[in-house]
Amino acid sequence: MKACAKGVHLQVCIFDLMMKVTIIGTGNVAWHLAKAFATANQVMVMQVAGRNLKDLKRFSKFAQQTVTVENLVPEQVNIIAVSDDAIMTILERLPFADALVVHTSGYTQMLLGDRIRNRRGVFYPLQSFSKKDVHLDFSEIPILVEAEDPKDTETLQLLAKTISNQVIEIDSEQRRELHLAAVFANNFTNHLYLVAQEICQKSEVPFSLLHALIKKTASKAIANGPKKSQTGPAKRGDKKVMHTQLQALKDPKHKDIYTTMTKAIQATYGKEL
Amino acid sequence: MKACAKGVHLQVCIFDLMMKVTIIGTGNVAWHLAKAFATANQVMVMQVAGRNLKDLKRFSKFAQQTVTVENLVPEQVNIIAVSDDAIMTILERLPFADALVVHTSGYTQMLLGDRIRNRRGVFYPLQSFSKKDVHLDFSEIPILVEAEDPKDTETLQLLAKTISNQVIEIDSEQRRELHLAAVFANNFTNHLYLVAQEICQKSEVPFSLLHALIKKTASKAIANGPKKSQTGPAKRGDKKVMHTQLQALKDPKHKDIYTTMTKAIQATYGKEL
Repeated sequence: MKACAKGVHLQVCIFDLMMKVTIIGTGNVAWHLAKAFATANQVMVMQVAGRNLKDLKRFSKFAQQTVTVENLVPEQVNIIAVSDDAIMTILERLPFADALVVHTSGYTQMLLGDRIRNRRGVFYPLQSFSKKDVHLDFSEIPILVEAEDPKDTETLQLLAKTISNQVIEIDSEQRRELHLAAVFANNFTNHLYLVAQEICQKSEVPFSLLHALIKKTASKAIANGPKKSQTGPAKRGDKKVMHTQLQALKDPKHKDIYTTMTKAIQATYGKEL
Repeated sequence: MKACAKGVHLQVCIFDLMMKVTIIGTGNVAWHLAKAFATANQVMVMQVAGRNLKDLKRFSKFAQQTVTVENLVPEQVNIIAVSDDAIMTILERLPFADALVVHTSGYTQMLLGDRIRNRRGVFYPLQSFSKKDVHLDFSEIPILVEAEDPKDTETLQLLAKTISNQVIEIDSEQRRELHLAAVFANNFTNHLYLVAQEICQKSEVPFSLLHALIKKTASKAIANGPKKSQTGPAKRGDKKVMHTQLQALKDPKHKDIYTTMTKAIQATYGKEL
């Protein structure tokens, strides 16, 4: 779809009613956002910008244009989807001013500073993105928005709602805490799955035997809350089982995790190691 | 359904074709097994035995009879579904000999000993059971079986297949390792969810914002394997983020877990803290 033809005065021009966005970055978050916006009726991805022409080319099916950062023109919402370290550099390099520019990071504050000549905000989709995700259902992914100007917050909420059913305004401090909580719920949890897999491999039992338990553990914690869902020797204070299990672990990394998690569970439920 | 009427000679008596089981114990595992067997066409729960008459009464809808352990008569498979500590006592107290008696524990070995006068085995459903589970789909729960006598192993496999699609024979050593892997994948993972919830509560953001991430983390690890699914500052070796996050944690238990898990992830992926 292109811009409205000249001479179209009375007809409602759909193009003008659409939200127009620019995405800066060609990584996983940029990719999944571009894809999600491309399927949303009310949004148009006008430009995707990046350094690498080969990476950019992949985006041509979702965006009207692919450009380098220097050739960007400002749109209604300009989304910087790059790694934490690169956000500030990009903000300073933007060839325009007074436009709404948001980043997509959970960790990074809504950046302030004299050298940033645009209106700032945050558009943080709370999910762990990887290239492996062929299809992501964005409707289930919460999007946390923040902006300096209340009107910009409203714009970001409108935009987020075109792809997600869970859109909430939170401030930088809350977002950083939420991101930290996600490190426990996602990064650390995933590593526990790896430890479980390593233990299975050592004794030649298929890791797939744990799949149903892993799914159930997640769904129970969601349905009943993690506190009520806790079971196991540490919760029961079963010293005999804990001692045997610690002895059975050969890898020092596994032993460390066993000891730390067991202590934390016992401290939470009031039993001594 | 009752026993076959006298005089029924030529008709196939369904009752005689059914597998008949006894369940000893009235806890969560006993409850969910009795319920699952009651809905399986080929199994009949003949007796459920326990000390507490009130607990026993709950089982009357699933079992032909509820009795005390002393009044048990042996059936084809006699299942002891009690806590690890109580299994041996129950085995010694059984008022019959030479019957197939199995326990349901992942941790406990297939018990041997002169004082046990019955044929031993194990019937271990790999799931974390709690009273909160109103409905459990047993077809997805792996059942791990073991017996001294190959014919008994076959019987246990037949019985397990009436309720589960994943029935595997493993020995006591493998079962104990699998149970230990489950402690990481279930008990410790659930505690990480609690930490995530506590962090959310502290900064007044709803824990429900993490629900989609928790589900996705589980399903990704199952689909792509945990090694390929690992993301986050520890995996990337992002010292700045790790330092800030450790500082942001106020609860020493949370700090301990952060440090231990971060170290383990870095050791796994080859980066120094």
